[in-house]
Amino acid sequence: MKMDELARQVKESSIKLAAAGTELKNKALANIAESLNERKEEIIKANQEDLDRSEKENLPAPLLKRLKFDEESIADVVDGIQSLINLEDPAGKTLLSTELDEGLELYRVTCPIGVIGIIFESRPDALVQISTLCLKSGNGVLLKGGSESRETNRILTEIIIDASQKAGIPSNWAALLETRSDVNDMLKMDGYIDLIIPRGSNDFVRYIMDNSRIPVMGHADGICHCYVDDDADLDSAVKIVTDSKTQYVAVCNATETLLVHEKAAPGFLPEIKKSLDSKNVELVGCPKTQALISVKPASEEDWQTEYLDYKLSIKVVSGLDEAVDHINTYGSGHTDSIITRDTGKAARFMDYVDSGNVLWNCSTRFSDGFRYGFGAEVGISTSKIHSRGPMGLDGLVIYKYKLKGNGHIVEEYSNRSRTFKHRKLDRDFTL
Amino acid sequence: MKMDELARQVKESSIKLAAAGTELKNKALANIAESLNERKEEIIKANQEDLDRSEKENLPAPLLKRLKFDEESIADVVDGIQSLINLEDPAGKTLLSTELDEGLELYRVTCPIGVIGIIFESRPDALVQISTLCLKSGNGVLLKGGSESRETNRILTEIIIDASQKAGIPSNWAALLETRSDVNDMLKMDGYIDLIIPRGSNDFVRYIMDNSRIPVMGHADGICHCYVDDDADLDSAVKIVTDSKTQYVAVCNATETLLVHEKAAPGFLPEIKKSLDSKNVELVGCPKTQALISVKPASEEDWQTEYLDYKLSIKVVSGLDEAVDHINTYGSGHTDSIITRDTGKAARFMDYVDSGNVLWNCSTRFSDGFRYGFGAEVGISTSKIHSRGPMGLDGLVIYKYKLKGNGHIVEEYSNRSRTFKHRKLDRDFTL
Repeated sequence: MKMDELARQVKESSIKLAAAGTELKNKALANIAESLNERKEEIIKANQEDLDRSEKENLPAPLLKRLKFDEESIADVVDGIQSLINLEDPAGKTLLSTELDEGLELYRVTCPIGVIGIIFESRPDALVQISTLCLKSGNGVLLKGGSESRETNRILTEIIIDASQKAGIPSNWAALLETRSDVNDMLKMDGYIDLIIPRGSNDFVRYIMDNSRIPVMGHADGICHCYVDDDADLDSAVKIVTDSKTQYVAVCNATETLLVHEKAAPGFLPEIKKSLDSKNVELVGCPKTQALISVKPASEEDWQTEYLDYKLSIKVVSGLDEAVDHINTYGSGHTDSIITRDTGKAARFMDYVDSGNVLWNCSTRFSDGFRYGFGAEVGISTSKIHSRGPMGLDGLVIYKYKLKGNGHIVEEYSNRSRTFKHRKLDRDFTL
Repeated sequence: MKMDELARQVKESSIKLAAAGTELKNKALANIAESLNERKEEIIKANQEDLDRSEKENLPAPLLKRLKFDEESIADVVDGIQSLINLEDPAGKTLLSTELDEGLELYRVTCPIGVIGIIFESRPDALVQISTLCLKSGNGVLLKGGSESRETNRILTEIIIDASQKAGIPSNWAALLETRSDVNDMLKMDGYIDLIIPRGSNDFVRYIMDNSRIPVMGHADGICHCYVDDDADLDSAVKIVTDSKTQYVAVCNATETLLVHEKAAPGFLPEIKKSLDSKNVELVGCPKTQALISVKPASEEDWQTEYLDYKLSIKVVSGLDEAVDHINTYGSGHTDSIITRDTGKAARFMDYVDSGNVLWNCSTRFSDGFRYGFGAEVGISTSKIHSRGPMGLDGLVIYKYKLKGNGHIVEEYSNRSRTFKHRKLDRDFTL
């Protein structure tokens, strides 16, 4: 089927899905969970095909590991769906209610965005998480996964559509795209697709952002910082910085640059070097850092680099203001942490650092939808509008204004025969 | 000054403004109101220069009227600022608070977006409204007004910056752009500007949307509909449709297409024709409309046209479903109203019509920031993300996640020596 026809169908179904109640959506989710369990042998067989083919094509071992989708993975995604059923429906919430005048009532009510296009990496669990988040929030979805996992993606999509349809959800609410050219076609569908969430490499995300009129949410870079203040507890700082850098290096919320107050540097730098040396982290530093510990020099480029590896850049700063300036200049607005015992400095850091996640005395690795308690996430946004940080269900809804009147016309207010009351109602929307 | 330096300065100041408290921002607003009153003769003199020059340049009378900024206009904008002072600060509100684990607390707190670029028409009151909305919400702003009002814009901007600076707000939080080439430069400043709100013609707004990586909020078209159902009170329907079409034709929330249920058409169409004839509205209609009243034929193009004039297209439909389909196909997602006595049909219309404002038994002209009780508005958005409908203070904020810990690291949760609690706190952010 041609992409525009596919997108049109998903859009049409999304209008009906948007009006589906919580009970119906939860029933569909329960059906999906049940069906994934019932058909796990088919899933595992399809995944084995993907694994065999990818092995032949010499896919690197870490990627093969991410591609693997076995009985345990299925149990995990089924658990995830059960948690999702228990989360509050993000759609249909009344955010504001005002009596504009007698009989003229305004409500701001959350609703799904419409159709979401999601491009994700070769992890089959991502397909299940993303599509079920879209279903729970009432959105249609176009899914484009990695080609390595194509057989697994096909069977999973079939199961999800089939099981949700049996619960009464229109079958075309979700569709799977398979080729790279599908992605380029998708970027042109601004008549049908309301939001694109790309997950992948920096270059890929930037390409998407530059080549579509459709709004894009996500992040290109994750250049996260830890700032160790002169009022920091240094033992705690060593623990936090080590965790932020090394707990999992290949992810966007791993720390890439360490900023250290010049008064803390002589005591702290030798300690953090000891800790990071034990994890084989390569260190580069500014001249002041080099005067205190033996590291290679950091270049201007280092402050702008997301290593995603066992490597850390270090800069000694004159204090909080320079740290904030450095972060706002070189950071990517993702996640930054201050380590200090001074509450006032923590407050200033959290006010002035222009990032989606600002942390005090804890690891940058915490900024994540699961850890934040949102269930899964569709992505992490470094945008300044709509949704910031880990995007869970709340990031997948918008609102509409619903105004009910009783023959009200504007002319009567314009000629001053009537005036507005604008009285808060604090009432849920009902007709 | 070069645009990138100007934008950089506004960005820098916006970081400080973002941390300003409600009291300081309200003091600055009060200073601005006072200063506008004190310096009204300077303003009126500058405005007279604009009027004189524009008259010589043969600016059409309606535009001259909009350009005029006299003692009464100043009193109006000063009243507007007083109301704005009384509105709740949209920044610094805690939207969510969760205890992730003992001593590890997550808060989602609203904050300004950053720097807003606003391009607006030649109405000097718009400059005051927009800049004070930005100040109250804590955003820096780059203002580009029409060249006809350049002297008025200059003195107003000078007064606003001067008065806010005296209250302690950094002086570079606002800046005025004056030339068309400034607009093109502005579109490239994605490192400094976080959101662009263009107000103006369809073509202009589309141009902006297609030529910047910066997110754009606003609306290109306002193709609004009234649907008169077979269960409508026809007298009320005549009043509502007449108001929706004629109360002010040159605005985006005026109705452009009337949809009528085929059962209501024979009784309703002659009545609405009588009412609209008396206001000199030109009517075009589908063949079924033409069979009932004498109107010219409507073409496919008519359903896609925002007349902004005394002209209305009319289509007879088989019922609610066709009306909804027509609106979702040809509408612009702005404002659509159903006239019916049937609550169930009203609910379906409001669920299925994919527009920012869905109305029942009232005029489309109500969808407006002032009428909705938001004070003024920076624009009306037909976007599907971030903000929909009239954008007031709430549309100018986003949020950041603030996480406070006590030495917490992720490794302990990964190796299962600790587990997350995810307990709702229902508490305002505090350190």
